[in-house]
Amino acid sequence: MLDARELREAVRAGEHTGPTAGLVPGYTQANLVALPQADAFDFLRFCVQNPKPCPVLDVTDAGSPEPAQMAPGADLRTDVPRYRIWREGELVEEPEDASEHWRDDLVGFLIGCSFTFERALLAEGLPIRHVEQGVNVPMYRTAIDCTPAGRFSGPLVVSMRPMTPSQAIRATQVTSRYAPVHGAPVHVGEPAAIGIDDLGAPDYGDPVEVREGELPVFWACGVTPQAVAVASRPELMITHAPGHMFVTDVRDETMATL
Amino acid sequence: MLDARELREAVRAGEHTGPTAGLVPGYTQANLVALPQADAFDFLRFCVQNPKPCPVLDVTDAGSPEPAQMAPGADLRTDVPRYRIWREGELVEEPEDASEHWRDDLVGFLIGCSFTFERALLAEGLPIRHVEQGVNVPMYRTAIDCTPAGRFSGPLVVSMRPMTPSQAIRATQVTSRYAPVHGAPVHVGEPAAIGIDDLGAPDYGDPVEVREGELPVFWACGVTPQAVAVASRPELMITHAPGHMFVTDVRDETMATL
Repeated sequence: MLDARELREAVRAGEHTGPTAGLVPGYTQANLVALPQADAFDFLRFCVQNPKPCPVLDVTDAGSPEPAQMAPGADLRTDVPRYRIWREGELVEEPEDASEHWRDDLVGFLIGCSFTFERALLAEGLPIRHVEQGVNVPMYRTAIDCTPAGRFSGPLVVSMRPMTPSQAIRATQVTSRYAPVHGAPVHVGEPAAIGIDDLGAPDYGDPVEVREGELPVFWACGVTPQAVAVASRPELMITHAPGHMFVTDVRDETMATL
Repeated sequence: MLDARELREAVRAGEHTGPTAGLVPGYTQANLVALPQADAFDFLRFCVQNPKPCPVLDVTDAGSPEPAQMAPGADLRTDVPRYRIWREGELVEEPEDASEHWRDDLVGFLIGCSFTFERALLAEGLPIRHVEQGVNVPMYRTAIDCTPAGRFSGPLVVSMRPMTPSQAIRATQVTSRYAPVHGAPVHVGEPAAIGIDDLGAPDYGDPVEVREGELPVFWACGVTPQAVAVASRPELMITHAPGHMFVTDVRDETMATL
């Protein structure tokens, strides 16, 4: 089995260009956002003010593509299987290598991902419906506003996993341990109360089946910072493509606070 | 009894100029650091990279003295009982009002304080020796380097509370709940192992008695960001004076992650 560094080398060499779900189990995967230094303080402040959707795992020096805390020696320009390049908030390209778009004034941010706590949920025998159905997790823009910071503002995005009430209670306990990677749910049971009209039509990802006796359980989602950054139309932003995460050298279990 | 807003109004009116320990019990008190906007990104990044000593509770807009998340309507220029004004890393003044030193480019940071978890320790019947002895908590510079960020780097500062082994274990459990305000201890038992040669000579605060059968238990300390910022010699920095904290509107219990 590959370790995290070996996977990143395979990605860098163009040998792996697909999604990363389930790869290198036990290692923390992360969302990528890279922005010009002029936007970096407001964006970091936005993340700090909204820790549930935007848990910051690492921040690079301006111009450096190395996330020195989470993966020393890695290169954020090449070690993500697929990128999205955004200019003035518009998606312009989805390359497998971001080197030609990188600039000396870019700051890279790694943000926690719910893949970390999904492993803990599965270990408890709790259902992850989108994994069972082999699709992407359903995600929704809510009517809950994030705390604005400078030029960055926008709605909270949530992911949803259907569970029975007793499963939802156990999942709340389990994910509460993972405060640095979204932590406990933000809502349970009433989609309309947070501005979600149709569970069957997620804003990102794929719909999943909600069975008789199940409640929808909602967690703050790492797509929030990307959605908010797009809405603020920065001159240039480089992110991972959905599901194509950056794999760090840090163990999932180190994200548990208790 | 005063609530947090009433205490801040008394402070603003010059009616309370002393330490804040024990005042408005149940409300979170915070460390203040204000820096020019040019240093703000590096400082915030330093805090994010060192979350145990530097848990960020709020960040103001540049030039705004209002910590809008933790105490809407408050004024960081006047609502701290005593300030320290630092220029190029040198302490130049300790005024009761910082208005004449405030600038339009200053960003204010509120950083978590161990007063929050001390209440939880006392509620468990665990000893807080410096409270028993009526002195300031002993604090020490360690040989542990913080993760550097831009111009900011320096040693971890820790606070110390002596406890029996069984008390130390319970205190580890209790403070683990308070991840946003320093969380679990960083060390127990061997001061020399973290570069502390003499427990009787703390670098900040006062020495306390360590009794037969007790271990020194060390927590990451909110003096770290101030010490690090001083070491980096920023043009201007405004902080609270030790023990003279900013009292927020947020309840201590909301700082518990579990």
